[in-house]
Amino acid sequence: MIGPGSHEELIARIRNRDVRAVARVISTLENNPRFAREFITKLSPFHQKKPRFGITGSPGVGKSTLVNHLVRQLREQEKRVGIVAVDPTSPFSGGAILGDRIRMLDVQNDPNVYIRSLGSRGSLGGLSAATANIVRVLEVFGVDFMLIETVGMGQTGFDIVDIADTVALVLSPESGDGVQTMKAGVMEVADIYAVNKADRPGADGLITEIISLLGMLDSPKEWKPPVLKMSALEGSGVSQLLDSFFEHQAFLAEHGLAATRRRHQIAREIRFIVESRVERLLTGETKHKATLDDLAEKVQRGELDTYSAAGVLIGMIINSLRDEEIHEET
Amino acid sequence: MIGPGSHEELIARIRNRDVRAVARVISTLENNPRFAREFITKLSPFHQKKPRFGITGSPGVGKSTLVNHLVRQLREQEKRVGIVAVDPTSPFSGGAILGDRIRMLDVQNDPNVYIRSLGSRGSLGGLSAATANIVRVLEVFGVDFMLIETVGMGQTGFDIVDIADTVALVLSPESGDGVQTMKAGVMEVADIYAVNKADRPGADGLITEIISLLGMLDSPKEWKPPVLKMSALEGSGVSQLLDSFFEHQAFLAEHGLAATRRRHQIAREIRFIVESRVERLLTGETKHKATLDDLAEKVQRGELDTYSAAGVLIGMIINSLRDEEIHEET
Repeated sequence: MIGPGSHEELIARIRNRDVRAVARVISTLENNPRFAREFITKLSPFHQKKPRFGITGSPGVGKSTLVNHLVRQLREQEKRVGIVAVDPTSPFSGGAILGDRIRMLDVQNDPNVYIRSLGSRGSLGGLSAATANIVRVLEVFGVDFMLIETVGMGQTGFDIVDIADTVALVLSPESGDGVQTMKAGVMEVADIYAVNKADRPGADGLITEIISLLGMLDSPKEWKPPVLKMSALEGSGVSQLLDSFFEHQAFLAEHGLAATRRRHQIAREIRFIVESRVERLLTGETKHKATLDDLAEKVQRGELDTYSAAGVLIGMIINSLRDEEIHEET
Repeated sequence: MIGPGSHEELIARIRNRDVRAVARVISTLENNPRFAREFITKLSPFHQKKPRFGITGSPGVGKSTLVNHLVRQLREQEKRVGIVAVDPTSPFSGGAILGDRIRMLDVQNDPNVYIRSLGSRGSLGGLSAATANIVRVLEVFGVDFMLIETVGMGQTGFDIVDIADTVALVLSPESGDGVQTMKAGVMEVADIYAVNKADRPGADGLITEIISLLGMLDSPKEWKPPVLKMSALEGSGVSQLLDSFFEHQAFLAEHGLAATRRRHQIAREIRFIVESRVERLLTGETKHKATLDDLAEKVQRGELDTYSAAGVLIGMIINSLRDEEIHEET
């Protein structure tokens, strides 16, 4: 599946900046959990985290155009950039998602920019784990800066906060999602607010609204999230966005928060791996699937209740997980 | 926690249409998974499913007003109605969510209408399991008809298809979510399309768009989803919506699809129970939580990789699940 070469060889090729090796490993990581487990275990000693900037917002606010400009600025600073675009609402992975990538064509031929898009593949814990692994591979590959772009926030199970150091929430006056439609928890998460399409009517009102809502937040953080105006189409305001990112990085480091954030991310990632393994046992075309169908039929006929059925299934899963662990150790 | 009375007594009171018993049981079901397990096991023999109508759509399309009208029509037919409003994006449960309920005040004093709102409480599998149980309790309580209202569709982990027999997707010309923003999988799921605010500009265009997209779907179903025009504010089109629901119910029964759908729902529900039990072991303030923090620190220091850490955790979870099962049997 992964083609010729042991894991060690593949790691060596990735460290040598072999784009084809990276592409192949990433695809296999997504599709083959067993490979992911073995490969990431071997890759980990070579991994060092790079700055990770998360960009999120509703569809149509101009995230991709913004990312395009950020990449250009980072390229002017001779930085190698990795981009992972995660769309938890799309079942598609790999190539283009939703046509957004078309706008990125001008950076797509630059060998120092590596772009990858990721769809949900049906599993949300799986999506978080896959994204973390892809970012890790790109960091070993030698990017200096990671951009992680995602649709929405806190509503899809995939949480950009689990991957990025700093998260910018992009809003636009005409996206129809004013601050009033934001749900509890969303406002608290962003470290930077980027009001895009700032030349359109309603931009100033939106900014006032954000600032007043930020003032109302229960837990005032020591970091005061900047509210920036920009026009991604013209490229204005983009350098302030990048500056704010680096200011936030410095803030996290100064206050000893970078390590704490990172530890929470790792804890969540470990949790996702455990959850995906259980999920896989329940959804794959395994013997458990057949058992589940049988159990459902019994519940439907009134011979069993859902909780007793779950108990039977848990017994089987315990055995499978134990078998996998034993197999792993030998 | 649940107050005086054994499970058997509570079930008897619910079957006797004791509203206070229902309210108390539902709150406890949400907050106490152990109670849920014991109570639902005992309730199951008394349960019989009632017609369940799911209403979904983006925020602001007028779902609540529509539900309000549906309730009125069902009340004219002397039907007792249960409503569960699920908002996976809100952390709030119980009382009002997002002010929507205010519009339902005119039905809230009717003893034959039971309304309950449910927020995410952080767990999506948990939300589906909780909703299924609440619907079950209301059906034992004696409602003739269940309305399940939820925000969004297929993007939040909570899937209305797991609970409802028939799902109506509500759209509005000015909600900004034209058909083009709908993701793969969303269009396929709805059994009925309700274009609300049909007097506003763009309504006819939206209808044309839906019909043409429905024609393009890969898998033409035998059921041809109707595309209905309505104005929830004025109440027009609401009876057609209810008629379409009953037509779809008849269609499912005629084609032997009702039982198959229901079996799939039960299978998913069993899966959610299993997943929530594992999730609880990972997120609760248990010894596993402490272990997870320790493991994350080791990964951060480079002494361990995420997959080996997950392996350690799985070993501990196997033991806990086994202990729970043994405890259950004795």
